[in-house]
Amino acid sequence: MFKINDNYLKLPGSYLFSTIAKKVSEFQAANPDKSVIRLGIGDVTQPLAPVIIDALHGAVDEMGKAETFHGYAPDLGYEFLRTAIAKNDYADRGCEITADEIFVSDGAKCDSGNIQEIFSVDNKIAVCDPVYPVYVDTNVMAGRTGTYDPKTEMWSDVIYMPCTADNNFAPELPKETPDLIYLCFPNNPTGATITKAQLQEWVDYANRVGAVIIYDAAYEAYISEPDVPHTIFECEGARTCAIELKSFSKNAGFTGTRLGYTVIPRDLKCGTVTLHSLWARRHGTKYNGAPYIQQRAGEAVYSPEGKVQLAKQVAYYMNNAKVIKEGLQEAGYTVSGGVNAPYIWLKTPEKMTSWEFFDYLLANANVVGTPGSGFGPSGEGYFRLTAFGTYENTVAALERIRKM
Amino acid sequence: MFKINDNYLKLPGSYLFSTIAKKVSEFQAANPDKSVIRLGIGDVTQPLAPVIIDALHGAVDEMGKAETFHGYAPDLGYEFLRTAIAKNDYADRGCEITADEIFVSDGAKCDSGNIQEIFSVDNKIAVCDPVYPVYVDTNVMAGRTGTYDPKTEMWSDVIYMPCTADNNFAPELPKETPDLIYLCFPNNPTGATITKAQLQEWVDYANRVGAVIIYDAAYEAYISEPDVPHTIFECEGARTCAIELKSFSKNAGFTGTRLGYTVIPRDLKCGTVTLHSLWARRHGTKYNGAPYIQQRAGEAVYSPEGKVQLAKQVAYYMNNAKVIKEGLQEAGYTVSGGVNAPYIWLKTPEKMTSWEFFDYLLANANVVGTPGSGFGPSGEGYFRLTAFGTYENTVAALERIRKM
Repeated sequence: MFKINDNYLKLPGSYLFSTIAKKVSEFQAANPDKSVIRLGIGDVTQPLAPVIIDALHGAVDEMGKAETFHGYAPDLGYEFLRTAIAKNDYADRGCEITADEIFVSDGAKCDSGNIQEIFSVDNKIAVCDPVYPVYVDTNVMAGRTGTYDPKTEMWSDVIYMPCTADNNFAPELPKETPDLIYLCFPNNPTGATITKAQLQEWVDYANRVGAVIIYDAAYEAYISEPDVPHTIFECEGARTCAIELKSFSKNAGFTGTRLGYTVIPRDLKCGTVTLHSLWARRHGTKYNGAPYIQQRAGEAVYSPEGKVQLAKQVAYYMNNAKVIKEGLQEAGYTVSGGVNAPYIWLKTPEKMTSWEFFDYLLANANVVGTPGSGFGPSGEGYFRLTAFGTYENTVAALERIRKM
Repeated sequence: MFKINDNYLKLPGSYLFSTIAKKVSEFQAANPDKSVIRLGIGDVTQPLAPVIIDALHGAVDEMGKAETFHGYAPDLGYEFLRTAIAKNDYADRGCEITADEIFVSDGAKCDSGNIQEIFSVDNKIAVCDPVYPVYVDTNVMAGRTGTYDPKTEMWSDVIYMPCTADNNFAPELPKETPDLIYLCFPNNPTGATITKAQLQEWVDYANRVGAVIIYDAAYEAYISEPDVPHTIFECEGARTCAIELKSFSKNAGFTGTRLGYTVIPRDLKCGTVTLHSLWARRHGTKYNGAPYIQQRAGEAVYSPEGKVQLAKQVAYYMNNAKVIKEGLQEAGYTVSGGVNAPYIWLKTPEKMTSWEFFDYLLANANVVGTPGSGFGPSGEGYFRLTAFGTYENTVAALERIRKM
């Protein structure tokens, strides 16, 4: 008789964003006359930039002719895209990453969920608290997290690194030594970030204790301040301890187009085994490459016109971030984030729990946000709003919140 | 100090098709004047059909306008595609599968590699021998296969079901009871298939012993004979024991476009837990949906024009299969497959091993095929040719083989 992977049953409730979607559709069904504004999930709203639309059309045309048709993509991704990434995201920033250290995929969510597979189930993970739920949930599924305590909302075998107002939302080096450290800066959900000097401390620490940093840089395009690292490979020694995850979802609006990449330097080894070779084997065995059409679109992101058009898109969202942040501050909320990230992190008023504030905001302002506690126990009492709505909706949402 | 997933190191050598690609590029480098014809990997060569190109362009245009832009796709896939699949691939064949039992993905390779995750690591798998390498390799990575014996090329904890000329390439019910049974019909690599009555025996067996059949129907579109099942859900009782994997790669040429789906009926349970809920949780946590553009292309596959255009494409490849099969027979080879599948399975001449014949064919005819032993120990002494080349190349390849 077959048996299931019991670890799945340990997961409490459903995936955060599925729960939110269900609550919102119930509210809408009960209140069909209310217009709900969604500033919850990190999904973009601006259409793909013209240069990307052109690249997509061009690639589609190629797929329609025998001479230019493309079948299975190379395991790691097309050379044209990996070369563009290596040049623009690394060489131009003085970072030593070669095209063959880049693995193109269909997005950072898959990569951040799958990357744990190449590590031993005995490895101990450390995560920021609060954090993007995928890191912990995928380790739960793999059986790496021990038992769940519903009271503390914590797993026995996970090292939590609280990020709260007390430490300016920057994690401190953990007391217990982890094997895998998930870091995400600019941070989802707090919108906070750390300086290059702070990140260098993490790289030095990882090299010292023999840990791997899985660095999620999905929000890199939103960095506006000078001393914030755009990639962990700006730090000395990162090539022997870091894996970086990148996405085209937020810098180019690819949430529904799907493209991302993972960087594993060849110097990152366990004994004589490179993690690069393990991930290459996983890619070759369980993945069949990102679509040619999307890879051409990814290439267009790095074209001169692409850079101009996408900088405008990022500026559009960051203007929303400003609207949200200033609007909330005027309304008396305690707010952070929104400067180097499209996320605004607010303290719930009057000691409401995160979910109480979610319900309150939905019922009274018809605005959807994300409860901070959904990202981890230290997120309790906080709430996330995203800048990815339209300008009009963002202004309208803040108007409603102010009136509330 | 972090540790790696040691199971990866147990995998012997590299992924089959990566090895072939390497051998071919070495041959081409050494013989730049030779024109190599590739009938090895199952990659298509015909361009996407006009109706699909139109659908892709239409969807790209939608992505370029705010009113019709699409962000994150629903976890299970868009309703429009799942409805089309449920109607055309199931309801029209009298099979009871609803749209919400269908999970859209970026291809059957990912699904066939990932599906094992929802099962216990203690489960024992049974595979046809020879077979598509992904089934075994992904179970090796998960630690489900025991130790590898390089002499027999077999894993200690895998139940092998030999498919040879002796049993007409149809597996027999295993003596030892498995928990998970991988079946692929029409078969890759042998091109053989089984009747509906034979498949019904497997379904009855699985229900009797409490096993799950993972049924890979990627080559369904190539079925030409009447008594061959197009889906396992034609069999009575399959809803309580079967998962079906489908691909758009071979029926619609999506190898580089990427789209597939998995069907998990809600009646398939372990105790009270539905496998549907586990796969839904995996999809929600580790996957971010297939691209909107590709899902619109998938929908076009089921349009009236789509059906006509794709039937022509399948006929084109099946004509190649006929050319290969008859050409080989005329040249004195023992051949099977090629009637309900785009694969031709031949016995290597003069007791050559599969890899010896690979080298011999590459050196003397400059034709690339796939060594049967790459698919499992019972594939030794066999060789796979695919019908996915162009007609011109296929004719030329057979001309060369005849002259050899």
